[in-house]
Parts: sequence; C-alpha cells; structure tokens
Amino acid sequence: MTWFTTPAAGLNADIQNQATQHQAILTKPAGSLGQLENIAIQFAAMQSSNTPKLNNIYIAVFAADHGVMDENVSAFPQAVTAEMVRNFSRGGAAISVLAKQLKATLDVVDMGTANELETLPGVLSMRVASATHNFCTQAAMSAAQCYQALEAGKVIAEKAKQNEADIFIGGEMGIGNTTTSAALASALLQQPVAGIVGPGTGLDDKGIQHKIEIIEKALAYHKKANTEPLKILENLGGFEIIALVGAYIRAAQLGLPCVIDGFIASVAALFATHLSKGVEQWFVYSHQSAEPGHRIVLQALKATPLLNIGMRLGEGSAAASVVCLLKNALALHNNMATFEQAGVSDKS
Amino acid sequence: MTWFTTPAAGLNADIQNQATQHQAILTKPAGSLGQLENIAIQFAAMQSSNTPKLNNIYIAVFAADHGVMDENVSAFPQAVTAEMVRNFSRGGAAISVLAKQLKATLDVVDMGTANELETLPGVLSMRVASATHNFCTQAAMSAAQCYQALEAGKVIAEKAKQNEADIFIGGEMGIGNTTTSAALASALLQQPVAGIVGPGTGLDDKGIQHKIEIIEKALAYHKKANTEPLKILENLGGFEIIALVGAYIRAAQLGLPCVIDGFIASVAALFATHLSKGVEQWFVYSHQSAEPGHRIVLQALKATPLLNIGMRLGEGSAAASVVCLLKNALALHNNMATFEQAGVSDKS
Repeated sequence: MTWFTTPAAGLNADIQNQATQHQAILTKPAGSLGQLENIAIQFAAMQSSNTPKLNNIYIAVFAADHGVMDENVSAFPQAVTAEMVRNFSRGGAAISVLAKQLKATLDVVDMGTANELETLPGVLSMRVASATHNFCTQAAMSAAQCYQALEAGKVIAEKAKQNEADIFIGGEMGIGNTTTSAALASALLQQPVAGIVGPGTGLDDKGIQHKIEIIEKALAYHKKANTEPLKILENLGGFEIIALVGAYIRAAQLGLPCVIDGFIASVAALFATHLSKGVEQWFVYSHQSAEPGHRIVLQALKATPLLNIGMRLGEGSAAASVVCLLKNALALHNNMATFEQAGVSDKS
Repeated sequence: MTWFTTPAAGLNADIQNQATQHQAILTKPAGSLGQLENIAIQFAAMQSSNTPKLNNIYIAVFAADHGVMDENVSAFPQAVTAEMVRNFSRGGAAISVLAKQLKATLDVVDMGTANELETLPGVLSMRVASATHNFCTQAAMSAAQCYQALEAGKVIAEKAKQNEADIFIGGEMGIGNTTTSAALASALLQQPVAGIVGPGTGLDDKGIQHKIEIIEKALAYHKKANTEPLKILENLGGFEIIALVGAYIRAAQLGLPCVIDGFIASVAALFATHLSKGVEQWFVYSHQSAEPGHRIVLQALKATPLLNIGMRLGEGSAAASVVCLLKNALALHNNMATFEQAGVSDKS
C-alpha cells in the first residue's frame, strides 16, 4: 500500500453527537442557522473538541503549466501562469489579498511553469517539469512524475500540520487547467465532455466548442490507458492538480480539515476520494463555481457548498473568502447561550 | 410631504463607472469574482469613494409582540420575545455573538413587548404599546402609532449615522412576526397567502395550514382598508417591522448602506421602497431565507442575496454573517494589483 491509498483519519463520533445536541439547545429555533450548524458540528467532530477553533489558516497555491495549451484552449497566454506566481509573491493577486485579510500563511508552490521563475519570496520550487506534455498526443507525464507531484502535495500538507494550521486551503494556478480538469472529470465520472466544459478564464462559444472537441479527441486517445484514477491523472495531468490530490489525502490522514475551492480544486478532491478512503469527511466546500462542470463534480462528492455567487477565479480565492463564515459558525456554536442558561422558553 | 416619503440620497455615478473600470483591470479574468465585484462597485458608488471601507458596523434589533398570537400561529410562546431581549442584552443570542465578532455596535430597541421589560444594558425603550392588536378582528394599530414606529426607526438610523457607521444592519425579534410579514407581503404584492407562508420558528404542516387560513381571513377583513402601503402597515403591523421600514428609509436618505437580513427584514425593505424613491440603491442583500415567502419578496425587490444556506433565524443574524464577505469584496477591490502594475499579460 502506497502512502496515498492509506485511509483518512476518523472523525470523533461522540463529539459529533454532543455538538449536534448542543446546537439543539442554543437559543434559536432548531436548525435555523442552516448550514452554519452543520459546519460547527463537522469542525467539532474533526477537531475532537466541543469548542472547535479556526485561528491558524494555511494556504498553498500550486502553479504549473499544461501541454494542452498547444491546442489553443484558453483566453489567456501561457506566460500568465509564471506572471501570476510573481503577482502572488508580491501580494497583488486575489488570494494574496484574502490571505492577508485572514492573517493566513500563504505558500506558493511552483510545480512546473513553462517559463522558469527566479527565486521569489513565499514561492517554493517543487518543479516536476516545465509544463506537462500535450495530452492530446501522449501521456501528460510519466508514472514517476505523477508520484512526484502527489509527494509534493504530501510535503505541503505536512508543513501545514507542522504549522499547527486549523485548516488547509489548496489553490491552483495554471493557464489551461480548466481544460485538464474537464478532461479529468469526464474520464473519472464517465460523463459527456460537453456537459462539463465551460469558458474557463473567458472563452467565447466557438472557443468552448473547440475545447470540447480537443478533450473528446484526447479522451478517445487515452480510452484504453485510463484504467484507474491514478492512470487518468498520469495521462491528463496536471502537476498542480495532482499536488492538490496529494495534499488533500495527506491532510485528511493527518486530521487536518480542508476547505475546497472551485472547479479545479474539486476535481482534485474527487480524485482524492477515489484514492484514499474517508478523505471526504475532512472537506468543507466553499462555493459552486460559475464553471458548469463544477455542479457535476460537486454532485459526485455529495457536496453542498456555502456560496453560489458566480465566482470562477481559482487560486483558493473562494475557499479563503468563506473562512470568515466558518469562523462565524464556530463562534455561534461556542458562545451562544442555551435556553436554560438564558431563561428563554423553548418550543410550546 | 412627510419625512418618510422624501426620496433617498443618490449614488455617485462617476465613481460607480470608475469602480467598474477598475474591476476590469485587476489581475483576474473579468467578472471572475462574481457578486463580490458588484458589491465593491456598489459600495464605491454609495460611499463616493474609490477605496470603499467597512469598519464601523451598527446593528439595531427591534423587538415587539403581535396581537395575532391570540390565534396560535407560532411554535414558541409569546413570552419568548421579551426573554430574547434579555438574551440579546446579556450576549447569549446569535446576533450578540456575531456583533461581538464584528466589533459592531448593537442596540436592541424595545418597540413593545407583551411582557414589560426592566431596564437592561444595550436596550433602548421606544415602546409604542404592549403588542399590536390582533389584526384578524381590527387594525393592528392606529395611524399615530404607525407614525410613531416609523419615527423610532428614523431616530435609530440617525444614531447610526451619528456613530459614523459604514453600514446599518436592522434585525427583528417578535414571536408571530412571520405571520405578520406573510400578511404584509401578500397584501402589498397581491400574491396568494399560501405561496408565502412557511413554518416560521417551526410549525408543522397543520400549523402552517392554520396560519394560512388566519391570514386569508384577516386580509379579507382588511381588503377595503388596505388602500396603500402605509395603510397596510397600520392594519397589519408590527411595531418592529414598521420601525425597520423607517430605519431603512432614513438610512437611505442619509446615504447609509443597509444590509438586509431575511424574510421579515426584506418585507420591511419592500415597504420602504414603496414609500420612498430610490431606497433600494442602498440595500445589500445578505441571504435567501428558508422561509418560502422570502423568494417572492426578493423577486419583487429584484434582489440577489449572497447566501442561500438554509438560515431562518432573523435578529439580523444573516446580515451580520455576510459582513465579512463584504469586507473581502472591498479588500479585493482596494488592494489587488492591476495587470499593468503586476506585469501580467491580459487576455490574448
């Protein structure tokens, strides 16, 4: 058994029951805080604590390029991946701003940008290669490279744990990676490509149609080789997505809650659940992306995200955005009075 | 012209355009922050500022009782209204916890609880009467009382403005007030009662059916007298809802953004838009309540709330919950780098 097929840690069922009972006696109609109640109960069970906390936040954004960009599948040029890594480092990107708001630790992990990067503050180099191969004509990477990418995610999750993070947020940056993600989701779920593909960073209808055709051809090419989740990852990529898979699996093994970002991160989360048992118990879902494939992936994960406000940026930006809602959920759980404490009459 | 029919302040259209243009050059695909972009643009226009801010938060929870409780329309006894005011004061309620999280000012305003209250810290007494009359058999209040309740809201909005609040959040507490709100919405929008009524704090199906019948009878009784929005408020109540109407109108006149809570607050917001022109420009919508009538009221307001996570508590709790998302929206607007600043290539 390799490390990434080892099951996740278990949740504390006793504390989960206690938290559920506690929510029922707080001074509010039972259930009236909606999903905020579920969030508090899940965190109590994940942290084995009747007073769950969410102070220390660790964010890693994995960046890499995609060979399939040879097929002209994005509204932005490939150079943007490396340029955005610099922007993350300098604090100008959405995730940089949100990380600062949260006083979170933000690590950017270069998994293999096409344009090599100079040494940058806050950027760790774990490059597997300068972009994946174009999956239309060959496997995106070797088995060894796939392991290497998973291992990078493992190292990052372990760093988060060592930092005593209360949650792990994984983000991604890679021009072309909605194409890779749509291919991954279609191959794993055996769902038609057309229902999954969307505009990504901003394709028009013609561009979307082209993207669908490219992916359909690629999936036909890999049909025989796509025998299992790990092989699908190897055949389609990308390095940053596979690093996320490894990070989620390792975080769940270490008992570290993960806040799942948008479409691409959710595809990685889905693969994680196919490789390691029980990983999904450690997932909190932040939002439903405007990217159409996300709905299908979330259904496969049986996920109900907190937000549905048309976000489609990636980088971990939606996951970081909802952390404050999670904090509210825990504050309510920990600090509201019970009917008895407050001398408030319960339901007639 | 009475004060509450005076139109709202205008928004700054120049700044709105500048903010819209600014969002388009930040380092992200255009539109990819979804509603967070709209929020930032709206705040820029409301505050006439290219760097809108959200530091100082003022919350008022208006509490009052409802004569229609004689008809047995709630899962909780009427005593809970006053008991919850004590709970607000002591810090044990959801809104108390959230206000503390936000470092917000929280005023609780006793508009007329059935059980009289002792002097309590943080509770202002603006009692109109000990509960409204039962609107099934008479007008809920006199015209003078309706003006008095509107005026109380005005005073509170002015206090918020004097406190230099960046936003105003209005909450409500009143056992039976989903019944009043459903009646108000049905009368104003001329929509069938059955599509608006829900379980409130927790009625079963039989209780909901009873609630529908009570409201239908009452609306038939007031049909001739319900000639205009102000008359509908007078005939149906309640004091806390009308205070909210007055507070929203005055806040909008003073140029103070309002974050709208759930079903009951949205009914008050809807009445505000019928009394004073342009009020809705100052509204930010926090969530779609699990209470079914909320969808209809939000449609009438052309509102797209940020959250839809099964909340149905009131007190301003959802409005307070989303403030942190609003803060994120402004932080992104104010602090993200532009493509030019970051040296990131724009769309091909």
